Amino acid sequence: MKSLEQFSGPARVVIDHVYPAVGGGQFPVKRPEGETFHVTAHVIADGHDHLDVVLEHRKIGNKRWEASPMRDLGNDEFSGQFIPPEIGRYEYRITGWADLFRNWHIGFVKKSDSGDSKISVEIDIGAEMVIQAVKRAKGADAKQLKQWAEILGDHSRDLTQKVSLARSSEFFDLVRKHPDRSLQSSCESLQLMVEREAAYFSTWYEYFPRSCANDLSKHGTFKDATTRFAEVSRMGFNVVYFPPIHPIGLEFRKGKNNTLVAAGSDVGSPWAIGSSEGGHKSLHSELGTMEDFKQLILEAELHGLEVAIDIAFQCTPDHPYVKEHPTWFKWRPDGSVQYAENPPKKYQDILPFDFETKDWKALWKELKSVFDFWIDIGVKIFRVDNPHTKPMEFWRWCIMEIKKEHPEVLFLAEAFTRPKRKYRLAKVGFTQGYTYFTWRNHPEEFQAYLEELTKTDVKEFFIPNFWPNTPDILHEDLQNGNRATFMGRYILAATLSSNLGIYGPAFELMESEPFPGKEEYNHNEKYELKNWDWNKPGNLKNEIARVNHIRNTHSSLQRTNNVQFVECDNGKLLAYLKQTPDRRDQILVVVNFDWYKPQGGELSLPLSELGIGHDKAFTVTDLYDASSPSYNWRGSSNYIHLDPRKAPAHIFRINL
Amino acid sequence: MKSLEQFSGPARVVIDHVYPAVGGGQFPVKRPEGETFHVTAHVIADGHDHLDVVLEHRKIGNKRWEASPMRDLGNDEFSGQFIPPEIGRYEYRITGWADLFRNWHIGFVKKSDSGDSKISVEIDIGAEMVIQAVKRAKGADAKQLKQWAEILGDHSRDLTQKVSLARSSEFFDLVRKHPDRSLQSSCESLQLMVEREAAYFSTWYEYFPRSCANDLSKHGTFKDATTRFAEVSRMGFNVVYFPPIHPIGLEFRKGKNNTLVAAGSDVGSPWAIGSSEGGHKSLHSELGTMEDFKQLILEAELHGLEVAIDIAFQCTPDHPYVKEHPTWFKWRPDGSVQYAENPPKKYQDILPFDFETKDWKALWKELKSVFDFWIDIGVKIFRVDNPHTKPMEFWRWCIMEIKKEHPEVLFLAEAFTRPKRKYRLAKVGFTQGYTYFTWRNHPEEFQAYLEELTKTDVKEFFIPNFWPNTPDILHEDLQNGNRATFMGRYILAATLSSNLGIYGPAFELMESEPFPGKEEYNHNEKYELKNWDWNKPGNLKNEIARVNHIRNTHSSLQRTNNVQFVECDNGKLLAYLKQTPDRRDQILVVVNFDWYKPQGGELSLPLSELGIGHDKAFTVTDLYDASSPSYNWRGSSNYIHLDPRKAPAHIFRINL
Repeated sequence: MKSLEQFSGPARVVIDHVYPAVGGGQFPVKRPEGETFHVTAHVIADGHDHLDVVLEHRKIGNKRWEASPMRDLGNDEFSGQFIPPEIGRYEYRITGWADLFRNWHIGFVKKSDSGDSKISVEIDIGAEMVIQAVKRAKGADAKQLKQWAEILGDHSRDLTQKVSLARSSEFFDLVRKHPDRSLQSSCESLQLMVEREAAYFSTWYEYFPRSCANDLSKHGTFKDATTRFAEVSRMGFNVVYFPPIHPIGLEFRKGKNNTLVAAGSDVGSPWAIGSSEGGHKSLHSELGTMEDFKQLILEAELHGLEVAIDIAFQCTPDHPYVKEHPTWFKWRPDGSVQYAENPPKKYQDILPFDFETKDWKALWKELKSVFDFWIDIGVKIFRVDNPHTKPMEFWRWCIMEIKKEHPEVLFLAEAFTRPKRKYRLAKVGFTQGYTYFTWRNHPEEFQAYLEELTKTDVKEFFIPNFWPNTPDILHEDLQNGNRATFMGRYILAATLSSNLGIYGPAFELMESEPFPGKEEYNHNEKYELKNWDWNKPGNLKNEIARVNHIRNTHSSLQRTNNVQFVECDNGKLLAYLKQTPDRRDQILVVVNFDWYKPQGGELSLPLSELGIGHDKAFTVTDLYDASSPSYNWRGSSNYIHLDPRKAPAHIFRINL
Repeated sequence: MKSLEQFSGPARVVIDHVYPAVGGGQFPVKRPEGETFHVTAHVIADGHDHLDVVLEHRKIGNKRWEASPMRDLGNDEFSGQFIPPEIGRYEYRITGWADLFRNWHIGFVKKSDSGDSKISVEIDIGAEMVIQAVKRAKGADAKQLKQWAEILGDHSRDLTQKVSLARSSEFFDLVRKHPDRSLQSSCESLQLMVEREAAYFSTWYEYFPRSCANDLSKHGTFKDATTRFAEVSRMGFNVVYFPPIHPIGLEFRKGKNNTLVAAGSDVGSPWAIGSSEGGHKSLHSELGTMEDFKQLILEAELHGLEVAIDIAFQCTPDHPYVKEHPTWFKWRPDGSVQYAENPPKKYQDILPFDFETKDWKALWKELKSVFDFWIDIGVKIFRVDNPHTKPMEFWRWCIMEIKKEHPEVLFLAEAFTRPKRKYRLAKVGFTQGYTYFTWRNHPEEFQAYLEELTKTDVKEFFIPNFWPNTPDILHEDLQNGNRATFMGRYILAATLSSNLGIYGPAFELMESEPFPGKEEYNHNEKYELKNWDWNKPGNLKNEIARVNHIRNTHSSLQRTNNVQFVECDNGKLLAYLKQTPDRRDQILVVVNFDWYKPQGGELSLPLSELGIGHDKAFTVTDLYDASSPSYNWRGSSNYIHLDPRKAPAHIFRINL
């Protein structure tokens, strides 16, 4: 509890309910670069004074606050905005003060209107305020104010002339331009993280470089992986993401299909990191050299692709850390290191770090240096494996420190865990997060989930990335799926979320054989080389390219929070709109969840939110199915028919 | 942003979303004494560890935290509660740690079930944990743990015996009783203000002592006012509240009906405080001496009444402060003091304090000392006039300081101002607040307002007090009202809100003459003596007594937040339930807003929330209208008929 000395007595303005704010200001709000940032707040004072309120912001590290006036919305609510000039971390706050000059001026005008006999005393009060304003002004302003102060203060002058000066808008505006802020109050400053565009709009293609030799007897290399770029780029992706590229352990190496004992020829799991070759800052030698990898990054750039790598903070028993830093692991009384387990299951090939170690500072610094290492090589996007099994506060420090120097670096959290943990990871700094998209099946489940992500506070800090498949997840729908299933799920991911990814070529080749009884791939590429038939007839490459092209050319699909669901009288259909704030780009998506039978239904479009008059005609053109005609619609009720043998969805552009 | 040194690295538990919390913990939550305080929070950590979570609390000033375990509700949510032992200010927080012993024990049991070959290593790990627990235990516990540690650590002993010991529940419970909390984390502590019962349940009767002489030629005294106590008490009130009792200014004294010039005989407004007789710590001499006032307080107590006085922080030009502390007022260039104004309106009899004075600390201290003075005399309830025209931070300091010594003192904020300012006053410390009750007219307006007060965060800090009339407000309904109007509005106040007040005897005598064109009384008692006919035929005293008796004997009506509205198919009827948490007291109120014509309607009672089976018969008995029969009901749909010539409302007791 504060003592009297800690109060700022005469500063009478109080500020609260600042929106947006994450965790009461403990964590930054996230926004894309170039976007106007809107802030509202409740600002009150005692009495009847008019208040002057400004929104202030500065980049972290800067001294000077930039201020812009906030608008009084009535009912003690104020709103303001600014456009952050570049990516990085900002703080913002609201500052207010009683606008004593304006209060005086309003009273003065009323009194002069009513012919108050003491108007000369009012002029004297005003003159004193102008004298004070002179001290706060400079140059021409100061000169002008000084002249006015002399006129008002000159008792030999004509009163009418003085009243007329003090009533003028020039006078009012110039004095207000130099307000008395000596009794201002500010709220605690809040934080804003401005992320580059790719944080909000990215299309990921995950594949294993080692399977790119197209020959099961040969371990693929970075050079082989580079040969896929033209195709991946043609399909419209802009991020290529590789599983860990570090040396793979030999001790307890897993065999094919995750079997306990590996054959001599087995390549092991890339997530079993570390061997005598090195650890998290080394490359698996069979993939190539550091020069090869740097070359790959450059080649990717030429194809409009960014390279994302996987960072998995765990070690094999033969990882150099185990000998170099024994205190970073838990040791058992029998002298062995504690491996990962979920009793009675054991993962002898994986040693977790012991984050409760007394040597935690050295551990944290070393782990951060892993990111620093790859950033120096040229990697700007990291997919982080299982971040929810490392302390939240570690991530908070690590990501904050990295982004101080490199605000352009992005982190995708691979956290398939409970919601509060997923969201905490986003709050402490992860740019994007994996989601429950894969386990949503029915239209109402998708709608409920998207509303949680985009219509609650979650939208201020969590940026979802939707994955129809991953090397770990082969959804039951896909196991039994046809073309419509695959493309339906792809279109859902691609149009609901502005960030999406697939694990290819398994996805576009419609790979669907499950490990018996599981939602996982059989003969999983995690444990063996593959010889993909990249151009297998019936592949989905053209369809995927079409969807990605629509995303790449329609900015409304490059954001997630703008989704708006549309009522439809058939529960098998899910319909939603995406539009830009200026309404120049308006997309209507309708997905038929019946992958086998045609379905039709009546939509109720929210015309007023689209800016379409109730009797105005408009056209919708299907961007996905070129064989579909354009429809001329009028009014909110419009009929939709979707035959999955042709297409599982419409992606309509609305033409006004 | 925190540096590495500021992190508690190995403490991996994070806590947020603690509920309830007001303004993120900036202000205290309020609760009545004797009530269980429930707290929930999100508590998470990385990995798969089980967490131990406790709710801790202490009175402000105490060193030692009292802890009670929180229950894991699943999905990372925890809940706990405690009963604060007495009134006053508390802090509470949540503390959690990874329960390493329990994690080990769960794994150990599973491994021993599956016949793990390394179970002796597990026993060794457990033995080390018990050795550590010995250090945290005392007495018999320590002795027992030490013995077990020796058994487990003795490698010559039979393994089966050791496994069986380590699996026993005695072993598990005793080791867990002494947990390793070295890596615990706590959230920021939050605040709780426990108020005495009268903060939540009070029935106020406001009257002017000076009108109690029953003779217009005589100024009433405290002694005269005391003669009304028996009657006020018989009507079931428990607080008597007097307008300011201080000396009334002579300069610019207002005449009858707020006229600018007072006649020599005019008594002036009690809110125009200060004269050569004294100021806020003095008594208006015509009311009596300090001894008389102390006697009045004692007499009130004998009648089960508490005395509330009005504190209005404003001064007449002849208030001693003006000469003693000229810096506490604003001075104009012509040497006059700035009076209150709302141009072109002027209030020359009232000088506001200048809270922007450099001498604010002395001003704050002096104003606080006014409360201290009257608390010493024996006053424990203050109605504060226009608190929203004094700084919020002043109140925060003043009330906090007073309640440190006197947590039993209550403050009612007379703030008829915009909602955010009203709510801020409640947050900074005002116990109760006046409301917009008086300006709500239709059933749906009452329901919406009560839902704002009782179903949003407002319920955690704002305790409403409903006033059907005040010396300042004669609602239009009452101006044209009949018996049903007065009693309908009284019953609404009395059963919706557990705190209510009336300005008497104007209310019970159905005084209804407005000042022309205003919602105010004509010949207002604020400016003149009255000679009330206290027993005027047709008065409402018996009806009011009956309603207050129902309130005094039914604890469900002694709380506000438990209101629950009931659907009714006639929009002229408003129906709502009040029940105690144990459902022992269940009240159903139905008000007919048609003060002139009978209305009937079908109610849909939420039977499951009342704990009534759908085919169970139950009886409702009207506690207000004794002539009304009891009804035997079954099922949720039940018909109600109300004739305003008999009664404007039913107040049913539900008998199961």
